[in-house]
Amino acid sequence: MLRIEFNPEKVPRQMSTKNAFYAQSGGVTAVINASACGVIETARKHKNRIRNVYAGQNGIIGALTENMIDTNKESARTIAALRHTPGGAFGSARYKLKGIEENRAEYERLIEVFRAHDIGYFFYNGGNDSMDTAQKVSQISKSMGYPVTCLGIPKTVDNDLPVTDNCPGFGSVAKYVAVSTKEAALDVLSMAETSTKVFILEVMGRHAGWIAAAGGLAGSGAAGEPPHIILFPEIPFRKAAFLKRVRECVKDYGYCVIVVSEGASYANGKFLAEAGTTDAFGHAQLGGVAPVVANMVRDNLGFKFHYAVADYLQRSARHIASATDVKQAYAVGEAAVKMALAGETAVMPVIKRVSDSPYRWKIAKAPLSRIANKEKMLPRRYISKDGFSITAAGRRYLEPLIAGEDYPPYIKGLPNYVTLKNVPVRKKLKTKFVV
Amino acid sequence: MLRIEFNPEKVPRQMSTKNAFYAQSGGVTAVINASACGVIETARKHKNRIRNVYAGQNGIIGALTENMIDTNKESARTIAALRHTPGGAFGSARYKLKGIEENRAEYERLIEVFRAHDIGYFFYNGGNDSMDTAQKVSQISKSMGYPVTCLGIPKTVDNDLPVTDNCPGFGSVAKYVAVSTKEAALDVLSMAETSTKVFILEVMGRHAGWIAAAGGLAGSGAAGEPPHIILFPEIPFRKAAFLKRVRECVKDYGYCVIVVSEGASYANGKFLAEAGTTDAFGHAQLGGVAPVVANMVRDNLGFKFHYAVADYLQRSARHIASATDVKQAYAVGEAAVKMALAGETAVMPVIKRVSDSPYRWKIAKAPLSRIANKEKMLPRRYISKDGFSITAAGRRYLEPLIAGEDYPPYIKGLPNYVTLKNVPVRKKLKTKFVV
Repeated sequence: MLRIEFNPEKVPRQMSTKNAFYAQSGGVTAVINASACGVIETARKHKNRIRNVYAGQNGIIGALTENMIDTNKESARTIAALRHTPGGAFGSARYKLKGIEENRAEYERLIEVFRAHDIGYFFYNGGNDSMDTAQKVSQISKSMGYPVTCLGIPKTVDNDLPVTDNCPGFGSVAKYVAVSTKEAALDVLSMAETSTKVFILEVMGRHAGWIAAAGGLAGSGAAGEPPHIILFPEIPFRKAAFLKRVRECVKDYGYCVIVVSEGASYANGKFLAEAGTTDAFGHAQLGGVAPVVANMVRDNLGFKFHYAVADYLQRSARHIASATDVKQAYAVGEAAVKMALAGETAVMPVIKRVSDSPYRWKIAKAPLSRIANKEKMLPRRYISKDGFSITAAGRRYLEPLIAGEDYPPYIKGLPNYVTLKNVPVRKKLKTKFVV
Repeated sequence: MLRIEFNPEKVPRQMSTKNAFYAQSGGVTAVINASACGVIETARKHKNRIRNVYAGQNGIIGALTENMIDTNKESARTIAALRHTPGGAFGSARYKLKGIEENRAEYERLIEVFRAHDIGYFFYNGGNDSMDTAQKVSQISKSMGYPVTCLGIPKTVDNDLPVTDNCPGFGSVAKYVAVSTKEAALDVLSMAETSTKVFILEVMGRHAGWIAAAGGLAGSGAAGEPPHIILFPEIPFRKAAFLKRVRECVKDYGYCVIVVSEGASYANGKFLAEAGTTDAFGHAQLGGVAPVVANMVRDNLGFKFHYAVADYLQRSARHIASATDVKQAYAVGEAAVKMALAGETAVMPVIKRVSDSPYRWKIAKAPLSRIANKEKMLPRRYISKDGFSITAAGRRYLEPLIAGEDYPPYIKGLPNYVTLKNVPVRKKLKTKFVV
């Protein structure tokens, strides 16, 4: 059992030992646990400052309901294994705290829990909503006379956080999409003479086309190389131009590989996926954009098609994670702890690109106010003039992010992902809080 | 381990040198090129017997139209790289030769082309249709006074060939499905508290549930471990029992992971995928079974869901191929050449399992007549009594087939798959043949 080894001589007089609270937020990624690993391993190196890292069970909800996990109960080996384990090891939550005016009680509850458990550090691992929350907690904790050091840790497959050059989580989904597109394209090319001529891969990214763009890495960008068409949410879908291109590809190259973002939409803003399809009972049918595009191809051109919907597979595919992404995910977790210990608050570690080739990057910091509630769209200059592919500039940006492989260990043919004991921290408050 | 049950020493000393013809047939796999590699590398070791391996451009169609590829024009390094390259390097074809009575002209044309190019060996890499063709070619070539040595080489992700313990191609798709199910399950478990509670993965296997069964390897089989439900084509779908189980899983474990075979169907034989969905224009909508199951869950239980359709990704995912599968795919290609040189004809190398654990196998041979046009279904004893999971016996059979990783080399974050020059063999015949 790990107890604090408190050596007063080693701790600067004015600095006390506190606990830290870490939570995962929103959609998980193949590498969010690598950030958790960075936080916990770094905190463990500073036992004189951070006694224990409590993790929120199901994210911030775990703080509100006082359901926290004692990470000191996990061995060093288990924590190290988080680096290669996808999903959110402590549970995540889609739960956005409201504005302070609307629901002051939630923020006060957070501070009450933090105070009861002697928590002086709040590490929030998420997207731009989470950065907004972290910033508000920083402010309100001060105003309540219990100042908490609040750090954001970037995470999103959507790559849409501002300031940071890229977001941990994106590089691995980008690699998955690029590799899968390349592989499926070889398959379709083999089959095209007598069978499937059009293949459609649906990828995530409801608002920004970063993930769809990554599909463009599957080929060199030379004419005829797959993917032949990318449908970005940033480019209004024009049916005639799209069908014309599909027909040309099949004529010129024998096949056509399409990567479509789930957010692809018409000029009027309507998603392609909202095609008004109904099931046998007339219920509006939920479904992806891929079948809509596939049926459009069939009805207008008659080509045989196949489609795949990558969905969660793309963001949980730790088996094909980008080594660059894993390193960066760990680095932002590590940096957040170091920044906190250096007295920083209301900031988030960001990735600064130093050079494209060779790819060099470093960690810098940005105030949460510059991150919160802002979205970074795929720049138009990364998309070709015709709107169907990526440019050389886009390729230069994307390529380093998928570089390197970081394979998990395997047992019996399967990745040996870790499961934590997740021992709860004993509750101290008498009050219950219902979220 | 590869032990071949025949003795090449028995081969008569003085034999003539002939060319070989190799063709890929039907849906391609992550490892069909490893079989091609086994054929070509082994043939190259016997230049005194096999002068050149001509490959059919787009399978058997390449023989009929005299469009063949000169594999001697490819370097040893390129041929070696086929071992780690998915898809069909020479193109495949969904093209079944008709019965001899119906279309004798096709068979005669084949023999005409073989004779013109001094082809004495026919290696046909495919499923049970292809074994039927190879057998017929063997018969008709004899009756036409130009006997060709005809060897089948097993290939199918569906694992439905008889006699052989398993089929090259299956192990890799099984590994992909098991790994993906395991990864997506970790994702869903993280999200289930506030978001997605049900995840559905659609996999291939229209007639046999081998691939769906492989999803069962994602967990240990202990209660609560994903996948919680497998829908096999062998088990008639009962909606009430299915929905009851989904509800129980969400109640007991917080989430429910479902692997569904594209061939899942009702007791009356109707596929679930034929749910009678129509698009906005009232056209019958093609689509997978996953959205049908997803909508059923939503309409009846109201749970938030996600679904993925693996489609071609599962059978082209060379990046996560099973090392066992790669070895066996190579071995059947190698063995086919050795058997041919040993004077065997109208046979196919099969995989014989010697033991489950440790897994040991050897190559044996089976007459094509025992393979052609037969399907091996998933045995009922591999499916649990309730029809929703695999049994210990099923697990014992499946586990060794996904064992081991065989990573392709990478450049710039992407697998370095080979592209052949595919230099055509000069045509010798004046006549054209239209398929």
